[in-house]
Amino acid sequence: MTATSALDTTTTQEKLRSARQAAAEVGRLSTSAKNALLSAMASEIHRHTEEILAANAMDLAADNLSSASRDRLLLNPARIAAMVEAIDAVAGLPDPVGEMLAEWTRPNGLRIRKVRVPLGVVGIIYESRPNVTVDATTLCLKSGNAVVLRGGREAVSTNVALVRILQAAPGMPSGALQLLDSRSRASAEELMRARGLVDVLVPRGGADLINRVVEEAIVPVIETGAGNCHVYVDKLADLDMADRIVINAKTQRPSVCNAAEKLLVHQDIAPAYVPRIAAKLRASRVEILGDEQTRRLAPGQGIGEASESDWYTEYLELRMAIAVTPSLEAAIAHINHYSTRHSDAIVTSDEARARRFLAQVDSAAVYWNASTRFTDGGEFGLGAEMGISNQKLHCRGPFGLPELTSTKFQVIGTGQIRG
Amino acid sequence: MTATSALDTTTTQEKLRSARQAAAEVGRLSTSAKNALLSAMASEIHRHTEEILAANAMDLAADNLSSASRDRLLLNPARIAAMVEAIDAVAGLPDPVGEMLAEWTRPNGLRIRKVRVPLGVVGIIYESRPNVTVDATTLCLKSGNAVVLRGGREAVSTNVALVRILQAAPGMPSGALQLLDSRSRASAEELMRARGLVDVLVPRGGADLINRVVEEAIVPVIETGAGNCHVYVDKLADLDMADRIVINAKTQRPSVCNAAEKLLVHQDIAPAYVPRIAAKLRASRVEILGDEQTRRLAPGQGIGEASESDWYTEYLELRMAIAVTPSLEAAIAHINHYSTRHSDAIVTSDEARARRFLAQVDSAAVYWNASTRFTDGGEFGLGAEMGISNQKLHCRGPFGLPELTSTKFQVIGTGQIRG
Repeated sequence: MTATSALDTTTTQEKLRSARQAAAEVGRLSTSAKNALLSAMASEIHRHTEEILAANAMDLAADNLSSASRDRLLLNPARIAAMVEAIDAVAGLPDPVGEMLAEWTRPNGLRIRKVRVPLGVVGIIYESRPNVTVDATTLCLKSGNAVVLRGGREAVSTNVALVRILQAAPGMPSGALQLLDSRSRASAEELMRARGLVDVLVPRGGADLINRVVEEAIVPVIETGAGNCHVYVDKLADLDMADRIVINAKTQRPSVCNAAEKLLVHQDIAPAYVPRIAAKLRASRVEILGDEQTRRLAPGQGIGEASESDWYTEYLELRMAIAVTPSLEAAIAHINHYSTRHSDAIVTSDEARARRFLAQVDSAAVYWNASTRFTDGGEFGLGAEMGISNQKLHCRGPFGLPELTSTKFQVIGTGQIRG
Repeated sequence: MTATSALDTTTTQEKLRSARQAAAEVGRLSTSAKNALLSAMASEIHRHTEEILAANAMDLAADNLSSASRDRLLLNPARIAAMVEAIDAVAGLPDPVGEMLAEWTRPNGLRIRKVRVPLGVVGIIYESRPNVTVDATTLCLKSGNAVVLRGGREAVSTNVALVRILQAAPGMPSGALQLLDSRSRASAEELMRARGLVDVLVPRGGADLINRVVEEAIVPVIETGAGNCHVYVDKLADLDMADRIVINAKTQRPSVCNAAEKLLVHQDIAPAYVPRIAAKLRASRVEILGDEQTRRLAPGQGIGEASESDWYTEYLELRMAIAVTPSLEAAIAHINHYSTRHSDAIVTSDEARARRFLAQVDSAAVYWNASTRFTDGGEFGLGAEMGISNQKLHCRGPFGLPELTSTKFQVIGTGQIRG
C-alpha cells in the first residue's frame, strides 16, 4: 500500500462541510486546550519522523523533479525538527481570540464591544514545501480556525502522512483539519468557489498560482505574492552603507520575495557609484542589466541592456537591473510604477528626503537605511508568519495570528428599541 | 442637450488610469485640505440644488419606474439638505490617515512603525439612491482615496449632475472622482476586473448585485449584504421586553437589512408567548408564517406554513416566520445554519445564557436585550457608514473611515543587513 492510496474517498464537498461544522468547536477551544493540542501535534510529528521521511522518499522518487523542486520538497531529520520547533513557537504566542479591541457605551445605554473572533474555515492552496502543511495548520488552529489544505501534487505522499499524524493528535477536534486531493485540479476549483463553507483563502506559492486563485476564487482571498523590490541610493547616501545594503538585499538569499531585484541610483552620484557597485555585484556573481546611462557609466563590466519588461520582473536569482534616476521624485515615481508594492528601500543620510520616500512609496514595507530582506514575520518580531500580503484589504505585509481572526460586535442592552 | 448627453467620451480604462494617478495626490492631502474640500463640496451641492432637482426630474420621467424605485431615486430640497449635512458630518470626523497603530524597536535596532495609509482607488458599484454618490465620494476623499463610481442606470442624469458639481468643487484634485458610464454593463465589468488600477471594490445594493460582484470581481471586494436577522426569545425572557424588541425589530423599518425576519421562541414559554406575540404582530399588520408547532399553538391567527426556503429568506417587508426551538443550543444552531450572519438577538434575563449566545452566534452583530435595528454606523457611534460588511475579511459589520484605509510598515535603520 502506498501512502497516496490512503487518500480517502471522502469528496471535497464532504470535507468542506466537515470543516465548517468543526469550526464552531475549534473556535470555542480555550487557550490552554489549543496550546495542549499544539504540543501534542509537535510530539506526534517528532515521534513519527521515520514514517514522514519514508513518505517523503516516495515523493522524491518521482522522475520529473527539477533540483529546485527537489530541494523545496525534501525533508530530513533537521527539517522535521524545525517543524516541531515552529509548532512550539506558535504555542508560546498570545492567543488573539477573545481580545477586546474596543468597548464603549452609547447615550441610549447600549454597551458595544468589538472582540476578536476566529475567521471560521481558512483554506490554503500551496505548492511543494511540506513545512507549509504543518505551519499553516498550527497557525490556523491557534487562531481558532478549522483548516482546509490543498497542497501540491508532487508532495502528496508527504502531505498525506503529515496530515494523518496531525489528525490523530490528542485533542484535535474531529473534522478540524482537512486535506483535499491534490491529484486533480477539481478540488482546488471547488475550494476556490466554496463561498459559505470557507471564509478566507490564502494562496502561497508562485505568481501563476496566486494569479489563478485571484482570477477564479469567489471566496475572499488574502493575496500573497511577488516582490519586485527596489533599493534607491540617494545622492546623499553613505556609499559604504549603500554597498552593504545593496549586496545583502540582492545576494543574501536571492530566491525569496524580499530580495532586491532593482537598484536605482541618483544621477549626481551615478558616475562614481555605478562602476563601484557594478564591480561589487559582479564579484558576488550577480548578472547585471542596466539602462542606457548605467551601461555608459560602467562600459567595461558587461552590463546587458534592460528591456521595459525587466523593470517589472521579479528575477528570484542572481540578476539585478540598474537605472539612473534624475531625482528622488523620479525614483519614487519609478518604484510606484514598476514595483509589486512589497518592499522598497532608500539609502540616504538626509532625514527629510527619507521621510518623503517613506511617505510616498506605496509599498507594504518601506525602508530607510536597511536591507529589504527584513520583511518577514520573524524579523519584524511578529512571532510567526502565515505569509506576506501583497494586497491592501484585511492586512498588508507579513501577517500572523491576529490577521487570522475577524471581529464581532457584541451589543448589550436593557430592552432598547430604535425610535 | 440632456444631462446624459453630457457623459463624456473618456473610456472606462482612461478614467481608471486617471483615478490611479490622482490617488497619490489625494493621499498626500493634509487633514485641513481635505476638510476644506469637503466644505466646498457641501457648498457646491447646496448652491446647485435647482440644477440637481432638474436632473433628477429627468430620471424620474422614465416610464418604467416602480414606486419603490421612484422613492429611492427621488430627490427634493430636504434630501439635498441631508446630503449637505452628511458631508459636513464627515468633515468633522477624525482623519484616519497617518495614524500610528504601533511602533517598536527590534533587538538589531530597526525601528518599525505600522501606520494607516489610504487604500488608493476605491470603486463603488451601486443602484439607484443618489445620496450614495455623495456619501461614498465624501468618505473616500476624507480617507485619502480616489473614487470611481458606477451608479445605477436609472439615476444617470442625477449622478452626472452631482459628479460634475463635485468635480468642480475648489480643491478637488484632478481625476480624483470618476463616474463610469452606467448605460451598459461593460463599465461595471471593466471595474470589477481592474486589478492594479482599483484597490478595493464595495458593492452596495440588493442580493443580485452583490452576488454578481462577488462572482465576477478579481479586485478585492468588501461584501455588503443581506440581513436574515433573528430574535430569539429565551425561556427566561422578560416577555414585555420581548414584545417591544420583536415588534421594533420587525416593523420599525421593514425594508432594511437590520430588520428582523425570524422569531425563535423557547418551547417552555411558547404556549403562552406564541399566541400573544402573534396577535401583536398581526395588529402591526405583519403576515406570519410558522413551523408546525407555532401553527398548532396559535391556530386562530391565520399563520401560514413556513417552507424550508423561508428560513433562509430576507423578506424586507411586513412578514415574519416563527419557529419554536427546544433549547438555547437549538436556537444558536438554527441561527448559525440559516442566518446571513448580519444581526441576531437574544432576549433573556439570564446572563450566562446571554453570554453563550453572544459568544456562539457567528454574526457581525449579536445582541442581548436590544433590537437588531441598531446595526448601523450612526447608531454605533462610528460617525458615518460606508456600508455593513457581511464578510469576515478586512472588516465586519458597519464600517466607515478607518476601514477605508490600509496599513504600511515603515522601517528605519542605521545600515542593518540580514545575516
